[in-house]
Amino acid sequence: MKLLEDKIKSEGIVLPNNVLKVDGFLNHQVDAQLMFEIGKEFGRLFKKQNVTKILTVESSGIAPAVMTGLAMDVPVVFARKHKSLTLTDDLYTASVYSYTKQTSNQISISKRFIDEEDRVLIIDDFLANGQAISGLLDIADAANIDVVGVGIVIEKTFQKGSQIIKDRDIQLESLARIKALTDDGQVEFE
Amino acid sequence: MKLLEDKIKSEGIVLPNNVLKVDGFLNHQVDAQLMFEIGKEFGRLFKKQNVTKILTVESSGIAPAVMTGLAMDVPVVFARKHKSLTLTDDLYTASVYSYTKQTSNQISISKRFIDEEDRVLIIDDFLANGQAISGLLDIADAANIDVVGVGIVIEKTFQKGSQIIKDRDIQLESLARIKALTDDGQVEFE
Repeated sequence: MKLLEDKIKSEGIVLPNNVLKVDGFLNHQVDAQLMFEIGKEFGRLFKKQNVTKILTVESSGIAPAVMTGLAMDVPVVFARKHKSLTLTDDLYTASVYSYTKQTSNQISISKRFIDEEDRVLIIDDFLANGQAISGLLDIADAANIDVVGVGIVIEKTFQKGSQIIKDRDIQLESLARIKALTDDGQVEFE
Repeated sequence: MKLLEDKIKSEGIVLPNNVLKVDGFLNHQVDAQLMFEIGKEFGRLFKKQNVTKILTVESSGIAPAVMTGLAMDVPVVFARKHKSLTLTDDLYTASVYSYTKQTSNQISISKRFIDEEDRVLIIDDFLANGQAISGLLDIADAANIDVVGVGIVIEKTFQKGSQIIKDRDIQLESLARIKALTDDGQVEFE
């Protein structure tokens, strides 16, 4: 998606350890018009999947997910992050490890908002090692629902996250695919 | 806003201690079309304020704030919640007490995304005791910026939150104003 790649080139900041900082338009400050275009693009890419519900994880997934929900006219559910949970009877939960923060969180979704009939599209801001997506797939398995697509705003294709999605034959669409972040601060796209 | 009041009547759940659960369309599952209408309505209500930036707090404020950013064509910044912060040089921070969770969080916004020239509109999902709004106002004071409006999706007018906004002569617009939650589970609007 050219609009997104241009934004990454002009405003993304490359930090050590393969970190790409995009807090100017995606995960702290949010460019609402760009999110709207992203939602429309996901709507177009997953049009044939008869999606009934969108899943994401708080907080950075919410803006692109809600815009996709708007484009596809389906509800959006965002999983909540917790340090730990004791009462989980009415929740689906999964554990998610963050390489950036080096801590594990549980994520959870209320059982009231997932139905066995649902055809789910997962939306997230980043795909790197695939920890968040893996957690959402665990929840989908526990809930016995079909995940018919995964839509990612920015994928780092030099990390392994996409493999778990491809292994399950799920349609994966990443709007910007980064193959390298160079030592001199450049972003190289596929 | 009639559309919102109807949704609260049909899907809101009244719990003990004046808790109104609206996780079916606002703060866990999100009705994207309703958020879009809410964004348009805030855009209309604050049209004359020449807003340059929208502030909110993760996570439940993000959906209505991003839709308002879309309607008004301005960037949205969401404050992040933390248990505690040590390195805060490049951040504006404030402390926010949650009556529901009975814990204090720090919220923070990067100094890079607020400018003294900004005319800020604060958007949030709920106004009850006003703790989150108060934290955002503290950050606005520290950043020396004008808050020109506060837009709330659901206000509980029987709690004291609106007073801190009125005391500062800031335009307050709440799209649903609840004057009572009854013992038999009814929601009474102003």
